[in-house]
Amino acid sequence: MAGIEAAAVVRYTDARGLGEALAGADALFVYDFLSTAVPGAWPAADRLRWLHIASAGVDPVLFPGLRASDVVLTNSRGVFDDAIAEYVLGVVLSFAKDFARSLDLQRAGKWVHRETERVAGREVLVVGTGPIGRSIARLLRAAGLRVSGAGRRPRTGDPDFGEVHDTAELARHLPAYDYVVAVAPLTEQTKGLFDASAFAAMKPAARFVNVGRGELVVTSDLIDALRGGEIAGAALDVFDTEPLPADSPLWTMPDVLLSPHMSGDFVGWRNTLVEVFAANFRRWVAGEPLQNVVDKQLGYVPTETQGATG
Amino acid sequence: MAGIEAAAVVRYTDARGLGEALAGADALFVYDFLSTAVPGAWPAADRLRWLHIASAGVDPVLFPGLRASDVVLTNSRGVFDDAIAEYVLGVVLSFAKDFARSLDLQRAGKWVHRETERVAGREVLVVGTGPIGRSIARLLRAAGLRVSGAGRRPRTGDPDFGEVHDTAELARHLPAYDYVVAVAPLTEQTKGLFDASAFAAMKPAARFVNVGRGELVVTSDLIDALRGGEIAGAALDVFDTEPLPADSPLWTMPDVLLSPHMSGDFVGWRNTLVEVFAANFRRWVAGEPLQNVVDKQLGYVPTETQGATG
Repeated sequence: MAGIEAAAVVRYTDARGLGEALAGADALFVYDFLSTAVPGAWPAADRLRWLHIASAGVDPVLFPGLRASDVVLTNSRGVFDDAIAEYVLGVVLSFAKDFARSLDLQRAGKWVHRETERVAGREVLVVGTGPIGRSIARLLRAAGLRVSGAGRRPRTGDPDFGEVHDTAELARHLPAYDYVVAVAPLTEQTKGLFDASAFAAMKPAARFVNVGRGELVVTSDLIDALRGGEIAGAALDVFDTEPLPADSPLWTMPDVLLSPHMSGDFVGWRNTLVEVFAANFRRWVAGEPLQNVVDKQLGYVPTETQGATG
Repeated sequence: MAGIEAAAVVRYTDARGLGEALAGADALFVYDFLSTAVPGAWPAADRLRWLHIASAGVDPVLFPGLRASDVVLTNSRGVFDDAIAEYVLGVVLSFAKDFARSLDLQRAGKWVHRETERVAGREVLVVGTGPIGRSIARLLRAAGLRVSGAGRRPRTGDPDFGEVHDTAELARHLPAYDYVVAVAPLTEQTKGLFDASAFAAMKPAARFVNVGRGELVVTSDLIDALRGGEIAGAALDVFDTEPLPADSPLWTMPDVLLSPHMSGDFVGWRNTLVEVFAANFRRWVAGEPLQNVVDKQLGYVPTETQGATG
């Protein structure tokens, strides 16, 4: 932040002091990306022109006041892509190679030989065709899996996905896939996308992976689908309530792998996030166009110009 | 086995009846690849010309009597390559993404955010440049890791490894690697290759992966190296005694991932192993050259002709 402090008055604040700090501020850098403090402090934003968030998903700050304002919203697109892709490949291999049971057996001191699954040739649907979804697709393809996408605009010949299905017709396509990966931005269209009907459409052998947002899923429906054997497992890094409440059945369900919203948080991520903001800050001071400008109606950074929209 | 039973008298036996079954037999298919029964029954082999083993490693049957005989030894080279490569990529990702601790925390109902490692760009040394090592190298490279090999014949420009170091000078090269994968055949030259001096040469952050044979490792040295922090972790699928004895400290050591000699055993492997034998049997009956003929002095199938020797 040193370069920014040399060029601007910087006020650091937690959620409690946000209103006071926001008065008179031209720009706001939301570093705690899950903070819900911004809407409450919004009336104090008397001259704000730019809000940058240290995350890829912008749902926590896409409240009506910001949407209606002229404030430009930018995100940290690109920082997490490859780390999350590695996480997804890791959980796919963990399911196929039965690593969780190996660890449970190891902890119990038991030697139990099992047969394992291959991942090569398995079919993966990545729901969400933004940069994170693309990185997941590239890495899983490199490892021998077959990957398609689901997005807002169905198409064929996509460089990373080949075929992209229409997310609006998700249930029609789900039966074909061994792994279904949720990484769509959270919008009015995607909230609760993975509900009872979606899980019912999946193969009984399918595994569901969520590295997007917890609210993409109707959690009670997911729990029912796992209990009922409609799907074979789930790897969840995000939840509709975080931290995951102590009384959630997910903690103790078999074939469920949990991690605490960390799939993208590689060693060095915090510095990288500040660098992304600092680079945009230099553009802003120089009057240049900002990078990663969110379409506040769509709820994400569109990439139409690259033929790669979500 | 139906095709074979139509063309030959087939006797099925366990270890106890091997001597009786071996008398008068022209060929022996060792299906239980870890069986140590063959040397004891060897005096009964009065007309044996061919021994096929349902494994890649042939160390259990490479006793002096077979070595000195004219009996041709063939193995099941190729069956396990890609499954083992997926296993190795899986454990590498498990270490990087801290999956074992995630599972332990999940079992304890605890939400503890951590930062994770990237695997892209990490340096891997694969010790053993046969087909399994090559498959590991290709898959790990596809996933973004940097891979070199170690084998009997140092060279550069190898299609899968790029640089291949001399296994005889292993300790000199080990300090450069984040992951060291043991997949060499077990021979007099490789027995105990990974000893105190090898582990001392590795990075303190290095992880050791053994998918070859337990006897490649001096197990007590590995345990000392893990306890002393000379290396950061180990994923072990093979052990010098299998099943791993209940009193082995490895069961309960942190940063150790154990699996019961199953890394190559994908669903369908047993059928595939029989198919490999049946294909060679057809060649044998037709008087054609057998595939996967082991050099009984080297202890593995040489691939000089493909420029890809171990």
